[in-house]
Amino acid sequence: MPTISIKGKNMPESPIRKLVPYAENAKKRGIEVFHLNIGQPDIKTPDIALEAIKNNTIKVLAYSRSEGSEEYRQKLANYYIKHNINVNADEIIITTGGSEALLFAMGSVCDPGDEIIIPEPFYANYNGFSTASGVTIVPVISKIEENFALPPIEEFEKLISSKTKAILICNPGNPTGYLYSKEEIQKLATIVKKHDLFLIADEVYREFVYDNVQHQSVLSDFGLENNAIIIDSVSKRYSMCGARIGCLVSKNKEVISTALKFAQARLSPPTFAQIASEAALETPQSYFDEVIIEYKARRDLLISELSKIDGIKVASPKGAFYCVVELPVDNADKFAQWLLEDFNLNNQTVMVAPAAGFYSTKGFGTKQIRIAYVLKKEDLITSVKILKAAILKYNKN
Amino acid sequence: MPTISIKGKNMPESPIRKLVPYAENAKKRGIEVFHLNIGQPDIKTPDIALEAIKNNTIKVLAYSRSEGSEEYRQKLANYYIKHNINVNADEIIITTGGSEALLFAMGSVCDPGDEIIIPEPFYANYNGFSTASGVTIVPVISKIEENFALPPIEEFEKLISSKTKAILICNPGNPTGYLYSKEEIQKLATIVKKHDLFLIADEVYREFVYDNVQHQSVLSDFGLENNAIIIDSVSKRYSMCGARIGCLVSKNKEVISTALKFAQARLSPPTFAQIASEAALETPQSYFDEVIIEYKARRDLLISELSKIDGIKVASPKGAFYCVVELPVDNADKFAQWLLEDFNLNNQTVMVAPAAGFYSTKGFGTKQIRIAYVLKKEDLITSVKILKAAILKYNKN
Repeated sequence: MPTISIKGKNMPESPIRKLVPYAENAKKRGIEVFHLNIGQPDIKTPDIALEAIKNNTIKVLAYSRSEGSEEYRQKLANYYIKHNINVNADEIIITTGGSEALLFAMGSVCDPGDEIIIPEPFYANYNGFSTASGVTIVPVISKIEENFALPPIEEFEKLISSKTKAILICNPGNPTGYLYSKEEIQKLATIVKKHDLFLIADEVYREFVYDNVQHQSVLSDFGLENNAIIIDSVSKRYSMCGARIGCLVSKNKEVISTALKFAQARLSPPTFAQIASEAALETPQSYFDEVIIEYKARRDLLISELSKIDGIKVASPKGAFYCVVELPVDNADKFAQWLLEDFNLNNQTVMVAPAAGFYSTKGFGTKQIRIAYVLKKEDLITSVKILKAAILKYNKN
Repeated sequence: MPTISIKGKNMPESPIRKLVPYAENAKKRGIEVFHLNIGQPDIKTPDIALEAIKNNTIKVLAYSRSEGSEEYRQKLANYYIKHNINVNADEIIITTGGSEALLFAMGSVCDPGDEIIIPEPFYANYNGFSTASGVTIVPVISKIEENFALPPIEEFEKLISSKTKAILICNPGNPTGYLYSKEEIQKLATIVKKHDLFLIADEVYREFVYDNVQHQSVLSDFGLENNAIIIDSVSKRYSMCGARIGCLVSKNKEVISTALKFAQARLSPPTFAQIASEAALETPQSYFDEVIIEYKARRDLLISELSKIDGIKVASPKGAFYCVVELPVDNADKFAQWLLEDFNLNNQTVMVAPAAGFYSTKGFGTKQIRIAYVLKKEDLITSVKILKAAILKYNKN
């Protein structure tokens, strides 16, 4: 019998998706499950993007260029310039989702055994990509009590070794919802320049910032032309998760030419989805205004409802559409499974993402969960009611 | 200045695409370029697939399941059963092109430093994926004089070490057009079972076989339930290269559960393209019949025209839509570039893929090119005329 690779054995299961069978069983028993566990927005995709697909005149569905279509990259450069990110089309490589951009970035800057420092908790799939690439994640703990603000820069500096190749941030953060300030990015800029590191910034939630605070891109005004790599995606921006279109942006020519070689090996990003993504760039500002108002209202409602639960700690999110919550339970993994297997309130329950999977340090986040506020307000209210009743019952058992 | 990874430096440039700038310059000078270099068919995508996209009723373009949509995998299993490949939906993982299936297969069975034995010449991007995965390709030479038939099985056996994890074949072959016989697959089956290796078979050209010979899948009747992994794709089958939908098929449960973890990290394959691919399964047999007649006619014409050129060696292809040709020139790389930079016949020239990029042994295939017969017959005739005149002129210089 041939055997699987060690890498394959070490690949993590998705902590977000591993509860799926329990949810499916609950549904089979007639229980309604509110999905707080996954960042799949319920917001409609812009009509302009969907119409572009319906009106396509393709006869031969051909490969596009490995770096993505010229027209799309040109228009995308204009989008970035509007966001104070001064790049041109040659500094953009279109990828199959932000996922592939991250894989290309890791492959371009790291060899097996190299290290990337990441503030934790972090987006769980960073674990998957680093395992696939043979990269070691070195975590820096950020704290729920500080809303997951950037840890002191000395904590990063302590961890930098000859193996360190990059610092990776997600801004605004998944799962934290934290939005880094100009001062925080400035501190990161100073340290990566001092130590010749890359600063990889996952900015897929760029538009999702509330409270009139401005998003700070690593490619804005920090002098990081050589160091910065942006990971981006249309998934959340236009509620087009299924398109699988993202991009890698860098002004470092060697990064681009290297990432292009990875892109050539897989031939091209999906053609239909590029058509939709190019059209989506014409989405009117009113679409975003409405979406932001909706998410802000959901966030405010969620935080206010959650804070009524005794013994709970909530990090107040400033962006994206997630928040991390510490529950008064012994173990969030067990609790999340119990919610689906053994609990219901009026035949309804909730599915949450246990936060331990967002940490790479063993034993951290075991009482925390991530909630994605991608449901409409009345469902969020119901969900928090369910959560409150569940905690009471769970702790009585 | 931060530095690129060694892996990134070692990533090969696409040998097929690296001549693109020369072709673009030729076009700017008003030269018509016939593209014999890339496997982008001119055949129309089935209407049924394109209509499914136009008639989609998606409002929120959501993630699909990481392993691909249930409906599509069910229907795909029926397709395989029709082709004497007895699999069910749970033994299929939908990928972003055959490319990603190969990446998942390599990651699932190999750790960095592990080896895969591949008959060469082989599909150039196998080099890219193996570099990205840290896998060492160990080539076994197959010969143009033998139409690139399977090398003697003793040659494989000599190369097997404790690091060998798999044998990889492409059947029918890109770039060779060779179709392995039942006896050849049987020999491979025996050796992989004897040494507990995986047999990875890239069968994306399954339908493209001529001369009434039957394609032999590694998952047909060879008892390879534990060993075989099929790489597949809709790209060539339905002329849907831009869809970026493929799949990995295996009856080895550990392979599937491991590949699924790689799939979860990148969330899901593209949704629109899955809709098109599912619909494409209903393509009537008449579509394939016409396509095969067309490709067979092109192949026969191409081989007959090429054989009129003095000093040329042609491997006679039995499948796919490529053939490898050895030219009477000093260096096919130089010649291919010269064709684009310095030559034209009545303002026309051809772009070919130098075959050295399809070998991993340095110095092999330096006089060979790959021709993709994806152009209509009159263009193939013109192309060979250009090639003939070019060889004469090039050798006079």
